[in-house]
Amino acid sequence: MSSVSLSPGERAVSRCDRLGEVPFSDEVDLLFRPWLGPGFHATIEAVSGWMRAAGMSVRRDSAANLIGRYEGLAPGAPALLFGSHLDSVRDGGRYDGMLGVIAAIEVVSGFHERGERFPFALEVIGFGDEEGSRFPVTMLTTRAVAGVLEEDDPEAAFAKLRDADGVTVAQALSTAGLTPLGMAAARRDVSELVGYVEAHIEQGPVLEAEGRAVGVVSGIAAQRRFEVKLHGTAGHAGTMAMGLRRDALAAASEMVLAVETIAESFDGRDGLVATVGSLRVWPGVVNVVPGDVVFTLDARAGSAVTRDQAVDEILERIAAVAARRGIGFEVIPRENLAGVPCDPELRGLLEAAVADVTGVPARVLVSGAGHDAMVMGRLVPMAMLFIRCEQGISHNPAEAVLPADVDVAIEAMTDFVRRLAVAGH
Amino acid sequence: MSSVSLSPGERAVSRCDRLGEVPFSDEVDLLFRPWLGPGFHATIEAVSGWMRAAGMSVRRDSAANLIGRYEGLAPGAPALLFGSHLDSVRDGGRYDGMLGVIAAIEVVSGFHERGERFPFALEVIGFGDEEGSRFPVTMLTTRAVAGVLEEDDPEAAFAKLRDADGVTVAQALSTAGLTPLGMAAARRDVSELVGYVEAHIEQGPVLEAEGRAVGVVSGIAAQRRFEVKLHGTAGHAGTMAMGLRRDALAAASEMVLAVETIAESFDGRDGLVATVGSLRVWPGVVNVVPGDVVFTLDARAGSAVTRDQAVDEILERIAAVAARRGIGFEVIPRENLAGVPCDPELRGLLEAAVADVTGVPARVLVSGAGHDAMVMGRLVPMAMLFIRCEQGISHNPAEAVLPADVDVAIEAMTDFVRRLAVAGH
Repeated sequence: MSSVSLSPGERAVSRCDRLGEVPFSDEVDLLFRPWLGPGFHATIEAVSGWMRAAGMSVRRDSAANLIGRYEGLAPGAPALLFGSHLDSVRDGGRYDGMLGVIAAIEVVSGFHERGERFPFALEVIGFGDEEGSRFPVTMLTTRAVAGVLEEDDPEAAFAKLRDADGVTVAQALSTAGLTPLGMAAARRDVSELVGYVEAHIEQGPVLEAEGRAVGVVSGIAAQRRFEVKLHGTAGHAGTMAMGLRRDALAAASEMVLAVETIAESFDGRDGLVATVGSLRVWPGVVNVVPGDVVFTLDARAGSAVTRDQAVDEILERIAAVAARRGIGFEVIPRENLAGVPCDPELRGLLEAAVADVTGVPARVLVSGAGHDAMVMGRLVPMAMLFIRCEQGISHNPAEAVLPADVDVAIEAMTDFVRRLAVAGH
Repeated sequence: MSSVSLSPGERAVSRCDRLGEVPFSDEVDLLFRPWLGPGFHATIEAVSGWMRAAGMSVRRDSAANLIGRYEGLAPGAPALLFGSHLDSVRDGGRYDGMLGVIAAIEVVSGFHERGERFPFALEVIGFGDEEGSRFPVTMLTTRAVAGVLEEDDPEAAFAKLRDADGVTVAQALSTAGLTPLGMAAARRDVSELVGYVEAHIEQGPVLEAEGRAVGVVSGIAAQRRFEVKLHGTAGHAGTMAMGLRRDALAAASEMVLAVETIAESFDGRDGLVATVGSLRVWPGVVNVVPGDVVFTLDARAGSAVTRDQAVDEILERIAAVAARRGIGFEVIPRENLAGVPCDPELRGLLEAAVADVTGVPARVLVSGAGHDAMVMGRLVPMAMLFIRCEQGISHNPAEAVLPADVDVAIEAMTDFVRRLAVAGH
């Protein structure tokens, strides 16, 4: 664990790389670190050691989250909490989640080496199941900490949700010496915490396209999903004259392009994006004019108002296209998630820190993906820092970050902590 | 089999309806009449009886086709051959193929009742396997009659092609008392035939849309098929900014609309139609920008020149869309079938007959679908008459025709035969 010749960013990347293999993965040839699996426990051990080496006391809470604490000027002070998640999807990348935990340890390690302490404590938390890596549910452990576990009827979930081997959440907890009831005790009181800050790879291409090492998140996107069903008339591709067709795929194509055009017309405002990701055609054979199409619509923006404005425009266009073409249609709402804005004060301090470290004003962007910060933001003021990743690739072994970018992130978080102290927290 | 109160068209429709059920179908609740199955043999028996009642001698050729013959003024004269197919797809309609055979018997029956004979004989043929209803190959028996069977390497086909029960073509022939070698003996010499005329339901919506009972076919469409593969970049629907996307589905949508727009720009010239019938998306999930799309293109027209002009325009647009969007693409040719024009003289006589019977100039239209006539046209002059069917529906139990339309078709064919005699055949 010598690090004399490595920068903090290099060391963080190197540690993430080490955690990408057995015994920290449950698979030999790929990274898969499901919650409470053998690789997960091995990871907890390794990360605990690095936390201690960085001057932190280490504990596991009753939801199996790993927490390191670096005391402030006075013992027992409220803590600024850094964190992200320890679990990984199957065949995942090495930096998704893990880098946020490891980089935060480097921040604390720096303070520890320099003997810097603050009016608040610093904590680093590694959450257990952000990804839904094992059970078909996400962020149970984060919700335990934020005190919102009960919203999801965990008792039913714990007894019914099973992993690929048929093990229930309750059984997995029991094996780890935990109980469903005990998980709720992981709840933190708001008085114990100053705020929550998460560093995470962007999982998108914006920072790379603009040549920036890091960016500051304005909020987690508000998200709506729909299923759109189109009913035209199937017909023989050779015998149905063009003018008599009610081609569901041609109608859908016009709608897909409308989604694109409308989303582009927002020109990135509030990070608005809209996507048709799935589109299926019936009967779907070469010589039959398509009679039916079902496609999905996913729209997100940092502001629910902006998102809904785009959705309204899109649905209006879908209706107009269907009417003009004589195509029956249904629009079925599937999800409507409120966005979670980052705390203005924390975000402002993080922007100032990034500007200071990089020499240019911080790029502010919306997080289109969900993160632990989305849940933690319901408990305490929250901020997020995005780190550039190669081609925006994530959930894939090709996930890659530049150690120099991680150095920038660590420096910015370090500067942020100092600014937070100056601001009187 | 009394028909005193029925018009010829009513009797023809009623006979087709009777043949839509057991024992003429191999299934109880739907029509399925595969080549050489029990229902097929029962149908041969029933149709043979109607042929005899119409004054015809009946035989089965060595390819198991059913042939009725009504001699001309002198015995042994060359024959004008009417026909279509006896087999039916699973869950098919009652008129596809069968109506062409039964209506032709009505034409001959009329001449028989009136004692009319011509310088040529009249024959009615019921082909065995136009649909590929049993084996994964179509029109073997038609090709035997046209003398082009060997082009398809029938020996290999007969030994290898199997039906759903694992029976080969050779075994099925053997069970019916036939041999693969003998099939080729079904070949007709061109000197025995004056021409081939097929009446068939349109299987398309054009005649219905224009309020016409029948139409004259100008030719079987020349057809080309392609598979188009698009390679964009998959990405997270929440994190990939609109401006940075290479969305394969958005590109495909533009191409689908280009296919439609270009085909429409031909305004029905030579019956040109172009269709994207199948389109698949990868990874095809709601929260991922589509990375890959594969779609099919099917283009047909009565003239290969017109068809190729449309195809060229379409492929040019596909390339332009792909280039503008930075999408990789491949266009893979899958089929290129020459069209088969109808014989100008026979078609002209049929048009004159239709105009005479209906009181308005005949509607001439391209057959976008293949028919026995496509194969027979390689042996002898060929013409086709389309009969209006409800909503263009075919290969479906909802297939429907109006008996009055069948009367018009029978009258037109009757008039056609007289005109052919007058023309000196």
